[in-house]
Amino acid sequence: MKQLLVIGIGAGNPDYITMQAVKALNQVDVFFLMDKGQSKDKLIDLRREICDRYITDPDYRFAEAHCPERERGDVDYTSAVVDLNQAKQQTFERMINEELSDGQCGGFLVWGDPALYDSTVRILQSILAESRCEFEFEVIPGITSVQALAAQHKVPLNTIGRSIEITTGRRLAAGKVSDSDSLVVMLDAEDSYHHVADPQTQIYWGAYLGTPDEILISGKLGEVADEIERVRKAARAEHGWIMDTYLLRKP
Amino acid sequence: MKQLLVIGIGAGNPDYITMQAVKALNQVDVFFLMDKGQSKDKLIDLRREICDRYITDPDYRFAEAHCPERERGDVDYTSAVVDLNQAKQQTFERMINEELSDGQCGGFLVWGDPALYDSTVRILQSILAESRCEFEFEVIPGITSVQALAAQHKVPLNTIGRSIEITTGRRLAAGKVSDSDSLVVMLDAEDSYHHVADPQTQIYWGAYLGTPDEILISGKLGEVADEIERVRKAARAEHGWIMDTYLLRKP
Ligand SMILES: C[S@@+](CC[C@H](N)C(=O)[O-])C[C@H]1O[C@@H](n2cnc3c(N)ncnc32)[C@H](O)[C@@H]1O
Ligand SMILES: C[S@@+](CC[C@H](N)C(=O)[O-])C[C@H]1O[C@@H](n2cnc3c(N)ncnc32)[C@H](O)[C@@H]1O
Repeated sequence: MKQLLVIGIGAGNPDYITMQAVKALNQVDVFFLMDKGQSKDKLIDLRREICDRYITDPDYRFAEAHCPERERGDVDYTSAVVDLNQAKQQTFERMINEELSDGQCGGFLVWGDPALYDSTVRILQSILAESRCEFEFEVIPGITSVQALAAQHKVPLNTIGRSIEITTGRRLAAGKVSDSDSLVVMLDAEDSYHHVADPQTQIYWGAYLGTPDEILISGKLGEVADEIERVRKAARAEHGWIMDTYLLRKP
Repeated sequence: MKQLLVIGIGAGNPDYITMQAVKALNQVDVFFLMDKGQSKDKLIDLRREICDRYITDPDYRFAEAHCPERERGDVDYTSAVVDLNQAKQQTFERMINEELSDGQCGGFLVWGDPALYDSTVRILQSILAESRCEFEFEVIPGITSVQALAAQHKVPLNTIGRSIEITTGRRLAAGKVSDSDSLVVMLDAEDSYHHVADPQTQIYWGAYLGTPDEILISGKLGEVADEIERVRKAARAEHGWIMDTYLLRKP
């Protein structure tokens, strides 16, 4: 049997790694890395750094595959992701078949937690459901960007006894969110916080959380929305890419 | 200046602890433990075990305080929690004033992540806002029970591009939830999953997650709801208390 470990490495700070993840890293023979093109080189580097730092016996190797890109522009988001996942599934199958022998352990290093807006677990479940390769797998949770955001702003995600909604910038812009007083927005490519009607809404915004480039801004939307847009644009221009998340709290 | 660290220790498995938390543990002079009565002794024990295991220089001590209980029965939930937090705030102030000298570091060991249904951060912010003690504090995120649930069931929390709602059993029972296709329920004292209308809804249920007593059940609500109720009741009788969480996924 082949064994796979889907390891959450936390969302930015190498110290977010858990003891469970360190033990898992040390079991892996082959790490599967998905190359997402130049802009994401830093993320690949962090993965290599984590392996360097926490693996005691260096008899592991990396297997790199080019990661297919999601089709952008005028296509339906969900079907673009479904297509992308099908392409990824083929890549995964090939890597599991070609790079791993029986009795060996393969590792996926997932940014943040594998359960949150990541397709690795879904793809492995599909491969198993279609009986296309044989393997066992385990999931190791990691600190998400949502938790990094709350910790760095020193703010709870919920108000007493109420719900939290975690959603995407796309849904916020489309008005497809509930009336929860605590809304966490991820995957926002377009400053969707401008779509929030009430300027008294509190925003806790964070970019490159947990990394040396971290930026935090908080305040009432009416007062800080334009500043966030400006800072965000400048940071993206400087780094070539941005990852940011925010919590919206109704007054 | 006094320094406080609010340290998320993960929700069950001692290996959920992060490197950041281990470093934080090693800075603490005094750990504040809130005694929640007999039923929660195991949780206090886990905190002591974590200190034993991960602190290299044992020159720390514990300061225990009796934790006030939330008023139960026929009272409004939110105001009961508000009252409880006021009583807790006084306890915190007393401990910070009496147990910690200037330049020392106090630690709160929070179950799971401090940002999720926990009052420590809110209380410290109130104390600072009312200028009742002087201190600086930092928050260290930890693996939540929600992440433990998803990892152990090997399931993503969201479906592609959709939202996740995290809520309480009380709100689910009262019908105060959105139509999100992924609903995570915590703090459920009364088998509120029976209130979900569609028997085709998939439930991923977990109790004592990450501990040796862990129980996992999943399936269509129509098929497993009664089993969960039975297992839950028996487990609560056996252990004297239960902590459980579940994900509801619409078909
Ligand atoms: C594909 S999702 C992956 C989320 C990841 N699995 C997690 O647990 O955080 C990518 C989104 O996560 C958020 N994100 C990830 N890392 C971040 C960081 N260090 N700072 C701010 N946002 C981050 C951004 O909203 C980004 O668009
Ligand atoms: C007051 S909340 C604290 C949540 C915690 N801060 C976290 O991050 O998971 C307590 C609730 O968390 C859930 N919970 C905590 N630990 C759990 C565990 N090990 N297994 C299952 N549920 C757990 C239960 O729903 C419980 O009612």
